[in-house]
Amino acid sequence: MSDTQQPTASSTLAVIPGDGIGPEVTAEALKVLEVASPVKFESTRYDLGAERYLATGEVLPDSVLAEIRGHDAILLGAVGGKPNDPNLPPGILERGLLLRLRFELDHYVNLRPSRLLPGSTSPLAEHVLEKGDIDFVVVREGTEGPYTGNGGALRVGTPAEVATEVSVNTAYGIERVVRDAFARAQKRPRKKLTLVHKTNVLVNAGSLWWRLFETVAAEFPDVTTDYMHIDAAMIFMATDPARFDVIVTDNLFGDIITDLAAAITGGIGLAASGNVNPDRTAPSMFEPVHGSAPDIAGQQKADPTAAILSGALLLDHLGHPEAAARIEAAVLADLTERAPGAGRRTSEVGDAIAARL
Amino acid sequence: MSDTQQPTASSTLAVIPGDGIGPEVTAEALKVLEVASPVKFESTRYDLGAERYLATGEVLPDSVLAEIRGHDAILLGAVGGKPNDPNLPPGILERGLLLRLRFELDHYVNLRPSRLLPGSTSPLAEHVLEKGDIDFVVVREGTEGPYTGNGGALRVGTPAEVATEVSVNTAYGIERVVRDAFARAQKRPRKKLTLVHKTNVLVNAGSLWWRLFETVAAEFPDVTTDYMHIDAAMIFMATDPARFDVIVTDNLFGDIITDLAAAITGGIGLAASGNVNPDRTAPSMFEPVHGSAPDIAGQQKADPTAAILSGALLLDHLGHPEAAARIEAAVLADLTERAPGAGRRTSEVGDAIAARL
Ligand SMILES: CC(C)[C@H](C(=O)O)[C@@H](O)C(=O)O
Ligand SMILES: CC(C)[C@H](C(=O)O)[C@@H](O)C(=O)O
Repeated sequence: MSDTQQPTASSTLAVIPGDGIGPEVTAEALKVLEVASPVKFESTRYDLGAERYLATGEVLPDSVLAEIRGHDAILLGAVGGKPNDPNLPPGILERGLLLRLRFELDHYVNLRPSRLLPGSTSPLAEHVLEKGDIDFVVVREGTEGPYTGNGGALRVGTPAEVATEVSVNTAYGIERVVRDAFARAQKRPRKKLTLVHKTNVLVNAGSLWWRLFETVAAEFPDVTTDYMHIDAAMIFMATDPARFDVIVTDNLFGDIITDLAAAITGGIGLAASGNVNPDRTAPSMFEPVHGSAPDIAGQQKADPTAAILSGALLLDHLGHPEAAARIEAAVLADLTERAPGAGRRTSEVGDAIAARL
Repeated sequence: MSDTQQPTASSTLAVIPGDGIGPEVTAEALKVLEVASPVKFESTRYDLGAERYLATGEVLPDSVLAEIRGHDAILLGAVGGKPNDPNLPPGILERGLLLRLRFELDHYVNLRPSRLLPGSTSPLAEHVLEKGDIDFVVVREGTEGPYTGNGGALRVGTPAEVATEVSVNTAYGIERVVRDAFARAQKRPRKKLTLVHKTNVLVNAGSLWWRLFETVAAEFPDVTTDYMHIDAAMIFMATDPARFDVIVTDNLFGDIITDLAAAITGGIGLAASGNVNPDRTAPSMFEPVHGSAPDIAGQQKADPTAAILSGALLLDHLGHPEAAARIEAAVLADLTERAPGAGRRTSEVGDAIAARL
């Protein structure tokens, strides 16, 4: 969230609406971005996802990736077809499109802020909520771990089949994300960083994470550190989430913990994320944490708030923190005044938030 | 929980109290077992864990494993030293003792029932709890997945270090646990089985799990099936846990989900588990889900209820379902009449439950 870049007159945006509710929520995010942004966005829309794959067999052609790479930032809706569509091999869009973008564009900081905003409803009981405000950020490693696609299968379809998944972890990859997390923690009032892993079982990867965490900690003496196994982190998320400030964790644990974090802070309809390349060697990508929810697609039922807040993260990353803050304030106001259970249409939520800007 | 074995006059029990609060809670479990069991237990105590390792360098000598193998069942407290004890390499006790027992004794069904018992406090809000009773069982695969200890590290301690963790999944290992889960689901009123995995990212292992799940499902036409990604399962655990009946999942996802399940059903102090070898080629092992909690060890502060309920699972496994049910009823009565926040000592809880039998 630290940004020293100067606003420029215009920025280029690659927009990937994606599948299911993706296009609907992306439209609202763009609507709000247009009103809030101090610069003009030149957007190019890329139709990637299930529909394109089913029609053409293409997931992410190299030429399209090269074009996307030329933009200042990427706004993504959601990717993923109908569950168990026989024409969509599992993971083809996730691995071939979403994860390929994260890996090729070196989005090693997968940033997922979690705040229980006033006006949103947590599934947690009052006796948990009264322990303190829920306001933490998960820094999820985005380019390695169990997400590398390493592994394979032998004797497929026979009773002797063996399938492996290899979690690949490098000092290079861990140190940079850990340092980023420490820097973020240092800028927050509580200055606290929790490493989440499973060092008692995944001893090779765990040891590497642990040692680099300790090493980098020495550079940030004012940041308080803590370690938690992923299973213990589950318990604290449910019983005392206010204790968390910044969490740094691996790609898979981060996936798991951020959905739980979204759930306890009012639902996946509000959870924003940034796939950030802090070195700015390629554009960063902003997307809601939620999936494509094909069951409610095209019905204007999806909550676009997460996509809109992802737009705020995008503005912040491009050097417009005030504009980002204005979007956040508008969302907050909208949430606070939202009648509980009011079934507004997707576009009505976008209109209401845009109107506040 | 299906048991056709006849009660025998006496059974042999290998007792591994372990570390931290392990010995305290195990003592109460034994106290209750003695009163409830229709057969006499001949117990042998095995002092394994941090203390033994620190004194002798031994974790689980082969000769001890061979002796343990000769028993009818194993009762375990908790294993694990003080976090970051420089004399305890991370994972040495977990991998060398606990996981070695699970793997060597082929505990492929790691059984973890979750019920929100009356009298216990959930961190979930009333609007979630009123959706229905929380009463599900997680069947966690116990002998493969990311827990195999496959993997390694290269160039350790240098900036070029690479560490891998290999999740190994076999048709042999998955099919048997999936079939066990279906059989359990079939015996329950709701007859519903949910597979939890991450098939969209871990495509090799995911595909194998998915295909075997589908194949075995054909043998159980009366069982309703469902699939959920692990991240989505987090959300439902927090927002609608009543929807779950039986869950089958891999070793690591099962570890994560069962701690969350324990948290939402009143805490890790109540969560029992069985490491079951359904083929009875080796003794099964029963243990609370909680860890050794070294910070409160020796203070009679730990809740022995999870250990006591693990004793009930043990009795059930040995063919004494009525005795198991009596323990469960006694625990239920104790919980219901437990004054909230009453700080009873560990032994007082054991006494109170034993007295009801
Ligand atoms: C769609 C899927 C590949 C993705 C992930 O696992 O990272 C999603 O769950 C997320 O959290 O962004
Ligand atoms: C102690 C640890 C190795 C163990 C596991 O990860 O299985 C524990 O968390 C459990 O759930 O039984």
